[in-house]
Amino acid sequence: MGVDEDLLKIADLFYNQLSRGEIPAFELPLRTRDNIVYDEKARVWVYGEKEGVRSAKTVKGAYQILKTVCLIEFLKQQLEEGRSSTLRELYYISENWGEAKFRVQSESDFLIEDLEIISSNQREHFHIRPEEDGASVFGPLTVREETRKGDKVIHCQDDVGDAGYLIPNNIDKVEFLEHDAKLVLAVETGGMRDRLIENGFDEAFDCIIIHLKGQPARSTRRLLKRLNHELSLPVMVFTDCDPWSYRIFASVAYGSIKSAHLSRFMATPDARFIGIMPSDIVKYDLPTDKLTERDKDALKAELKDPRFAGDFWQKEIKLQLDLGKKSEQQSLAKYGLDFVTDTYLPEKLN
Amino acid sequence: MGVDEDLLKIADLFYNQLSRGEIPAFELPLRTRDNIVYDEKARVWVYGEKEGVRSAKTVKGAYQILKTVCLIEFLKQQLEEGRSSTLRELYYISENWGEAKFRVQSESDFLIEDLEIISSNQREHFHIRPEEDGASVFGPLTVREETRKGDKVIHCQDDVGDAGYLIPNNIDKVEFLEHDAKLVLAVETGGMRDRLIENGFDEAFDCIIIHLKGQPARSTRRLLKRLNHELSLPVMVFTDCDPWSYRIFASVAYGSIKSAHLSRFMATPDARFIGIMPSDIVKYDLPTDKLTERDKDALKAELKDPRFAGDFWQKEIKLQLDLGKKSEQQSLAKYGLDFVTDTYLPEKLN
Repeated sequence: MGVDEDLLKIADLFYNQLSRGEIPAFELPLRTRDNIVYDEKARVWVYGEKEGVRSAKTVKGAYQILKTVCLIEFLKQQLEEGRSSTLRELYYISENWGEAKFRVQSESDFLIEDLEIISSNQREHFHIRPEEDGASVFGPLTVREETRKGDKVIHCQDDVGDAGYLIPNNIDKVEFLEHDAKLVLAVETGGMRDRLIENGFDEAFDCIIIHLKGQPARSTRRLLKRLNHELSLPVMVFTDCDPWSYRIFASVAYGSIKSAHLSRFMATPDARFIGIMPSDIVKYDLPTDKLTERDKDALKAELKDPRFAGDFWQKEIKLQLDLGKKSEQQSLAKYGLDFVTDTYLPEKLN
Repeated sequence: MGVDEDLLKIADLFYNQLSRGEIPAFELPLRTRDNIVYDEKARVWVYGEKEGVRSAKTVKGAYQILKTVCLIEFLKQQLEEGRSSTLRELYYISENWGEAKFRVQSESDFLIEDLEIISSNQREHFHIRPEEDGASVFGPLTVREETRKGDKVIHCQDDVGDAGYLIPNNIDKVEFLEHDAKLVLAVETGGMRDRLIENGFDEAFDCIIIHLKGQPARSTRRLLKRLNHELSLPVMVFTDCDPWSYRIFASVAYGSIKSAHLSRFMATPDARFIGIMPSDIVKYDLPTDKLTERDKDALKAELKDPRFAGDFWQKEIKLQLDLGKKSEQQSLAKYGLDFVTDTYLPEKLN
């Protein structure tokens, strides 16, 4: 069934409720921290069974239903015309919806998430584009991208510059044709990504190198998920040694609370962490910086985060709090520019 | 003369001073706000004539000279081996320089800038890479990039996905072969960049679209400079309507105080501003946000900034302070997804 039909089903629901003389209403899961449960089978965190009701019984609720209907109409038209828009544009477009105009952008953002949940879609299916830049890809992989001007076939080593293939904001437009890779390496910083390319790590280890650019964009997480799922490639995440980097890993591997309804599409539970660990600071005697108070608080919060409940993380995070230190992936340069590719990564991959 | 010789000349200077029984020392311009002057001919802001002396007379100065020599040795070796490194790696590499080790990264960053100034080079010539991602390019332009694996010829519409051609961190590796463009449009946000591509603005206006990604990286500014200088293409900068966006324009057009010694290579004095102006907020009745106190302070600072001394900027900035409002480029979506390409940009370009 098409996305437009999924959306019209919601409008249908309201229509039928109204024709039966009922007050329009719909139910959806509570999006709160205490309604997040671990799905053993999918190995990701998803929303639990607690539900809330959006009903036109109150004035606020009635406005919400009106806005939902206007939004569905706009999305339907956008899909029909083959157009797309950003969350920000959507907010501004509502300027002309009279009473249904959004007052702040968080309101329209939230409503799009509601629609994702009710209709079991992802916003990309509604042609709502992200603002952020997607990842760059470099390695032995051939893709076919459905572009504005027809399909294009691109080899992510031979047909691109050294900066790699930049994925489009909607990763659904990319199909994997062929590959000659044994693993996917997702790298936090641009400096380290460029180091691996310069050192020829992609060729030496038959490796697809993805630049995460810090906390990865939705399209980047979906790309990693698909590389893992469709091509059965192991995904390794290579980051700095600090609490923010562990969060990057967690969002890749387990999904985020904010988008738990999408974990099944965006999280890669098989992803492995091969970033710098607190025990590596000791093992390799790496240059460090002191943990700030903010770092310490974040580490303590992670100790209680169910995504870090395993022995491995508990031990490492406690060690880091004891050491009082953090370290960057580029600190491996202490042992020269080749240490990361000749020693560190081969040791971690074994 | 090669970069390595430029560097060795500095070491030579110290050697000769020492053999004459003199204390090693060198002079270089003061890098302070009051030593920035406008170069009428180049139409950019550059360092003036005030100079400071780095001398081994003091212990601190002696360490500085030692570090300079170690750094020159490292850079010479890196150039010989055809390698490159980031500013961060450089800092960590100095771990093994004994007494010459940098204590904080700002120290090595600053010394690289010294070397840029003394040797009249850009750090990219020393093969010191930036951390930041470069711009993406989309439009009727064919480039030849000198990649790790030989030269590659890429057409920035036909040979790339919809996300465009991602420039490498060293733009010197890119040569412009052919083009069919009438102008270059540098766009602040990814959402707007994608809007222009979806609407086919590059084809309708024979336009090369560059995504600035906020405050543009060095390689992006050097790319714009070269497109303007080598291909004689007008460069238009399209941003939001707030003080931070005006700074983006100023760094593209006039250079920054921090790197005034590089303005001649990085600034594009011919660049024109076609971003949203305070007078456009009124003219087009655009959706706005209130100026924050930080916004107001930044605007007031810009009123005194010599780069904004012209009538145009003085009038617009004062109007914005009166209005108390700012606006985003995507707010044009109030009038539909085509307004920006059908009305706003054509009006501005005329």
